[in-house]
Amino acid sequence: MDGITKWNAREGVWQMHAKKLKCWKCNWEGALAMKYECPVCGNSLEVVYDYEEVNKENLEKALSGCSGLWSFTELLPVRNPEHIISLNEGATPLYRSSEEFECQVYWKDETRNPTLSFKDRPNSVGISVAKEFGFQNVSIASTGNGGASLSAYAAKGKMQCHICIPESTPQGKVVQAEYHGAELVLCKGDYSDSYQYNKQQSEKNKWANMTSTYLNPYTMEGDKTIAYELFIQLGRKVPEWVVVPLGAGAMLTGIYKGFVELKRLGFCSELPKMIGVQAEGCAPIVDAWLNKQDEVQHWDKCRTIAGAIADPLKGYEKDGTRTLHCIYESKGAAVKVSDKEIMYWVKQLAERDGLFVEPASASAVAAIAQLLKERVIKEDETAIGIITAHGLKDSEELEKYIEHAREDG
Amino acid sequence: MDGITKWNAREGVWQMHAKKLKCWKCNWEGALAMKYECPVCGNSLEVVYDYEEVNKENLEKALSGCSGLWSFTELLPVRNPEHIISLNEGATPLYRSSEEFECQVYWKDETRNPTLSFKDRPNSVGISVAKEFGFQNVSIASTGNGGASLSAYAAKGKMQCHICIPESTPQGKVVQAEYHGAELVLCKGDYSDSYQYNKQQSEKNKWANMTSTYLNPYTMEGDKTIAYELFIQLGRKVPEWVVVPLGAGAMLTGIYKGFVELKRLGFCSELPKMIGVQAEGCAPIVDAWLNKQDEVQHWDKCRTIAGAIADPLKGYEKDGTRTLHCIYESKGAAVKVSDKEIMYWVKQLAERDGLFVEPASASAVAAIAQLLKERVIKEDETAIGIITAHGLKDSEELEKYIEHAREDG
Repeated sequence: MDGITKWNAREGVWQMHAKKLKCWKCNWEGALAMKYECPVCGNSLEVVYDYEEVNKENLEKALSGCSGLWSFTELLPVRNPEHIISLNEGATPLYRSSEEFECQVYWKDETRNPTLSFKDRPNSVGISVAKEFGFQNVSIASTGNGGASLSAYAAKGKMQCHICIPESTPQGKVVQAEYHGAELVLCKGDYSDSYQYNKQQSEKNKWANMTSTYLNPYTMEGDKTIAYELFIQLGRKVPEWVVVPLGAGAMLTGIYKGFVELKRLGFCSELPKMIGVQAEGCAPIVDAWLNKQDEVQHWDKCRTIAGAIADPLKGYEKDGTRTLHCIYESKGAAVKVSDKEIMYWVKQLAERDGLFVEPASASAVAAIAQLLKERVIKEDETAIGIITAHGLKDSEELEKYIEHAREDG
Repeated sequence: MDGITKWNAREGVWQMHAKKLKCWKCNWEGALAMKYECPVCGNSLEVVYDYEEVNKENLEKALSGCSGLWSFTELLPVRNPEHIISLNEGATPLYRSSEEFECQVYWKDETRNPTLSFKDRPNSVGISVAKEFGFQNVSIASTGNGGASLSAYAAKGKMQCHICIPESTPQGKVVQAEYHGAELVLCKGDYSDSYQYNKQQSEKNKWANMTSTYLNPYTMEGDKTIAYELFIQLGRKVPEWVVVPLGAGAMLTGIYKGFVELKRLGFCSELPKMIGVQAEGCAPIVDAWLNKQDEVQHWDKCRTIAGAIADPLKGYEKDGTRTLHCIYESKGAAVKVSDKEIMYWVKQLAERDGLFVEPASASAVAAIAQLLKERVIKEDETAIGIITAHGLKDSEELEKYIEHAREDG
């Protein structure tokens, strides 16, 4: 009936195959725990599974229909179903674009998640793991969507939620979190300042930190389920390109991890090329890629209409570096787009596809248009744009913009 | 993949079983057409099917899983699949309430529709019928949600959309419609004034009028699919009570029609009792019910936080009367609730269930609490509250309210 009920309908209780945490950079390994960085080199961590143990029959069943995030329990890091906190996330639609592009373009419509953004995936997994580890308090630094989402899950799971967001966060995202009963701190400065403040507070108070840069190693396990769903929805095919709007980029790396797992388990033989997109006014990862650098530098002053991806990475530049390396590994690309292009595609998606999205989402569409022009994406290929969040999440900005357009005639 | 693709996957092309229009009041019958009232008595119409012809095997298949509105084509009034305009509406979750009520309470979460309200159901069916009849222009008078929804469907179907809404409509709903490229007229006065203006304009310009009071006889066919889904999600059971926030009340009558059809086709032997809910500040139907009247009188000055159900029925009181008679027929009840109760339950739903809803939605919850107290709903019974639209649809009102609460300490 709801996520939990659907899950309970499966026979028996599963065996969890998540076995340890590993540093993405130096390969340090350690036990599963609420741990945020490698004790050796300070880089971020990832969850490692014993893939030999995965019950392929169960996974095959999950891959034969699209029935939500928690249908993929074979590859999720929760042991006890009673710890799952779900609001029926995932199983979002995949649409063929109404715009005539020269290649096959699809939108993965993450606006259809319970709190209207893709953040429900990482948060549902992250908070369930926190519950399993015995935490009663969760926290997050967010540009708004992540906080609105986590506060809803905390309410559902009867846990306390603490959120740090930049002062400039749109009211729509703030009001959601307030109604869900979260404790909100509006931080001066940009997202990086919120990130640091929340990190300190979480350490001091022993809250499980869900911040979905790469800080929390479990949240990416939610992001990766987008890969499983794309594989199902494309009729068991791997797309040539997956185009992802980037803050720090954990969603990009998560989706790639999902495909790598499918390949490792023998479900496919190809991997997609990952394209990361940022706004011109805040593009630290794209600039590093364009300059063929090995490491990402932080950005100084963010100026973009796409607030949800305005992450300057100040103090955690290494998270950008991890995304950069995932793009390199997948033989992908990084693209920056202007606010003007972004708003052009917001309007196009609304007028042609009936999709009303926040500016950050349209950056993926702008990138596809740009890469087709540059012949990076070829005619016979398939490209997926991840539509990250609903337009009503940032309706103030969208209202301002359309008022300007009206005044200009 | 999307609604259409899912549909196409069904073998062959179906035979439409919708046969004629019928006046709900005087039983006049006529051919299927874009017709808005009975030529004999001026009352509203409904779609009649040849139930003998319905392929029960197909319907059985549709009733064995919850895969969206257009899986119920056996009982929908569209002949040619190419005319279907879909954004993946329906298949919304049913949640057991986290609040401990004395009976079994579930929320049917219509916020999970593509434009975040239940209106996507009537509009998807209505606009598809309009396309089948050859219209290129659709129109609607709306308190906001209906217009935002229709504009998205018109964009997807490459049709032109004309919307009349009261000046006081929340910006969030206006901005959605603007982005989707609809022509918007902000009307002075209340919803009834918008209704009349749109009716005149639609007649003059020969637009298909989708106004979801009872004006358009096809839109209710979308509402009724909620009944089919409840039947599936409750494990093939009919709930004792279905609780519906009322404007004119077409959704209530639609849901009841869905259950009547299931009974007629032998899928169930019971029918639910329908409860209509209005805000104290605009309660024409509830007052008629409380006074055991046979006809509804219009309301003079609407004053409620629940704008989405503030319909004074001025000039189309007979639509309220139709709803009243459906409540009588089902042996249901009508309840009015205060803005204070409404906002209490908005907060409770957010804090306990992780659901962020607009005020009108919470009126259903307030009504259930009230009827349990009055022992109308009994301990061993099941009650469904229809959660009609997402909180971000009316975030201005919700912000104002929470700011007041903050100031009051």
